[in-house]
Amino acid sequence: MPHTAEILLTLFAVFVAAQVGAEIAQRLRLPGVVGEIAAGCVIGPSLLGWVQISEPLEVLGEIGAVLLLFSVGLETKLDDLKKVGRLPIAVGVAGVAVPFVLGAAWAKASGFDTPKALFVASASVATSAGITARVLQDMGVLSRLESRVILGAAVIDDILAMLLLGVVTALQGGEGINVTGLILVLLQAVGFVALIAVVGTRLMRRFSRLLDAPINPLSPLTLSLAVCLGLALAASSLGLAAIIGAFLAGMAAAEADQRHTLERQLQPVMAFLVPFFFVVTGANVRLSELSNLTALGMLLVVTSLAVISKLLGSGLGAWSLGKRSALVIGTGMVPRGEVGIIVASLGKQAGVFSDTIYAIIIAMSLLTSVMASPALKALLKSETAP
Amino acid sequence: MPHTAEILLTLFAVFVAAQVGAEIAQRLRLPGVVGEIAAGCVIGPSLLGWVQISEPLEVLGEIGAVLLLFSVGLETKLDDLKKVGRLPIAVGVAGVAVPFVLGAAWAKASGFDTPKALFVASASVATSAGITARVLQDMGVLSRLESRVILGAAVIDDILAMLLLGVVTALQGGEGINVTGLILVLLQAVGFVALIAVVGTRLMRRFSRLLDAPINPLSPLTLSLAVCLGLALAASSLGLAAIIGAFLAGMAAAEADQRHTLERQLQPVMAFLVPFFFVVTGANVRLSELSNLTALGMLLVVTSLAVISKLLGSGLGAWSLGKRSALVIGTGMVPRGEVGIIVASLGKQAGVFSDTIYAIIIAMSLLTSVMASPALKALLKSETAP
Repeated sequence: MPHTAEILLTLFAVFVAAQVGAEIAQRLRLPGVVGEIAAGCVIGPSLLGWVQISEPLEVLGEIGAVLLLFSVGLETKLDDLKKVGRLPIAVGVAGVAVPFVLGAAWAKASGFDTPKALFVASASVATSAGITARVLQDMGVLSRLESRVILGAAVIDDILAMLLLGVVTALQGGEGINVTGLILVLLQAVGFVALIAVVGTRLMRRFSRLLDAPINPLSPLTLSLAVCLGLALAASSLGLAAIIGAFLAGMAAAEADQRHTLERQLQPVMAFLVPFFFVVTGANVRLSELSNLTALGMLLVVTSLAVISKLLGSGLGAWSLGKRSALVIGTGMVPRGEVGIIVASLGKQAGVFSDTIYAIIIAMSLLTSVMASPALKALLKSETAP
Repeated sequence: MPHTAEILLTLFAVFVAAQVGAEIAQRLRLPGVVGEIAAGCVIGPSLLGWVQISEPLEVLGEIGAVLLLFSVGLETKLDDLKKVGRLPIAVGVAGVAVPFVLGAAWAKASGFDTPKALFVASASVATSAGITARVLQDMGVLSRLESRVILGAAVIDDILAMLLLGVVTALQGGEGINVTGLILVLLQAVGFVALIAVVGTRLMRRFSRLLDAPINPLSPLTLSLAVCLGLALAASSLGLAAIIGAFLAGMAAAEADQRHTLERQLQPVMAFLVPFFFVVTGANVRLSELSNLTALGMLLVVTSLAVISKLLGSGLGAWSLGKRSALVIGTGMVPRGEVGIIVASLGKQAGVFSDTIYAIIIAMSLLTSVMASPALKALLKSETAP
């Protein structure tokens, strides 16, 4: 059975490379995802060429992305939002608006047409709170006001990013942008997100015990995953990104009584499947696209823009806490991580991003993730020092 | 992104059908797997045609089968074998030998050439202890001698079935059978199984703490899964069935200190991926192949042969315990379940099994699984009654 052996070889190579990459990265005190993507670059066509991107591998990667966004949604509890008050909302909104506007302006100035420019911009808005949360936890400052603002704002940020992504993906199909079209798309995206976020979460709060009705003891997990696939399908059929549906399914599942069981049981499933997403993402990066001065210059500009716009936006939103706290919060919001990477791979799939812009956005997402932790640590340390 | 939507539709349909099928089957007091395979028949090309078998779906199914056999291996502890003594070995060996010989004789008489006849026969040897174990547990008789003999014999049975499968798959490539070739293949299969079963388990016992060395808190699971994929690849490259490698990886992992954590964490991964295997298996069944009297007659003969040969073989092995205990043990060994189904799908993939013989073997595996529990319950009840 040579075909089975071939597929198993790919699965084995991808999975082992991800484990090795994540371990090396973590030993170097970098986020594991940086290592997994780097591993993909190394074993992919760009360098060693051990792994070719085949359809089954792409599907495994897509499943990984869907599970990843489901878990991001699962960490997004509407009630937590109500508790945190207005400040995180200001930080989240300004932290999305400034990078989006500046990103779109840059992309437009670089020669992209408006729909593509908006897509590029939407890849640079979402904060990956995971990295920041780990730094805050390591330093024992999770209960500080700044920490709570960052984590609350990251939730707002995720929801807004999904909404923006919904609008920009839907815009790619059309012939340019007209006001009626834009309003229709916006209504559709807002409607879908609002429907699931409001009605879905209420239904889940009221009927979550039904998740335990089937005989299968793992039914809360299997039913939630079924809802996740179903909403991903619904989003995809509406012309929105599938991961928006997965994210909303996670948000709804976060309201279930079985939330903690779901979180625990989702870990092993993600540990097996999410590496396929990151390695495929890395393997799709054509390193040669970054090996000239023009591209490196562009990467420098995009990364600086991403950092500065986020610092500016989130910092302004938190200005009322004082300059220093605003700086801590802005820095904590800098990492782009998973969501930026997923948006980049969506853009590549849809044929909106060239190999160059794809490579640049992936690299920018990784760089912001890598830079944020030492900067945040340095800021917090200088504070506690006399 | 219509392609993404199409794939998500397939994944959603398959996953939901599996959940519904398993639930209905369990409400009818049938094993869940029967419902999942039936669901596959219903949504597959045979009936509704909602799902076409595409390459990504097949790969997901293969991953499910590999995980399934890994978990079977994880329940196979070498030390348990040493404790149970000789009786389970006699029951296991005779319970494999008699069905294999009778199955091969029937297949040869039905016109298959020798390699194919041996493949058909190997699909009818392995006992699925899971169903029996649940019945014994439900009736509170797990600690009885017969129960321990059944569960011990099922372990022997699994190992022998993998060995046989190794030999017969390797034989399919060649041009007929010659004694030298057969001995070479046998040596290769025995060598591979013995190497992993003896050396692998020892290495795992001694070095299992290394599974916890990486920073990733789920590293025992991810490393075991990497070994599982690696040994599946190794088996496949040697011309043996990939699932043999997965089974042996499970057997090695069963010796790890982290065994119970592995078992617990493997459950959610399997809950997500194994349904794809069973639904694909069901969707591959051409129901029309069973809708004529000849095929139904053949199914009757094959099923009767499978039941009688197992009763005879295992019963003879347990004869020293008396007629009644021998009957209980023989009945407990009747269900074929997962392993028979996996062998059938391997045979279909390799082009050895026609649609008819594939449908018959799947149906036989399901029928033996369905029949065994009521028969076993009746036997055990009639005993406890005055």
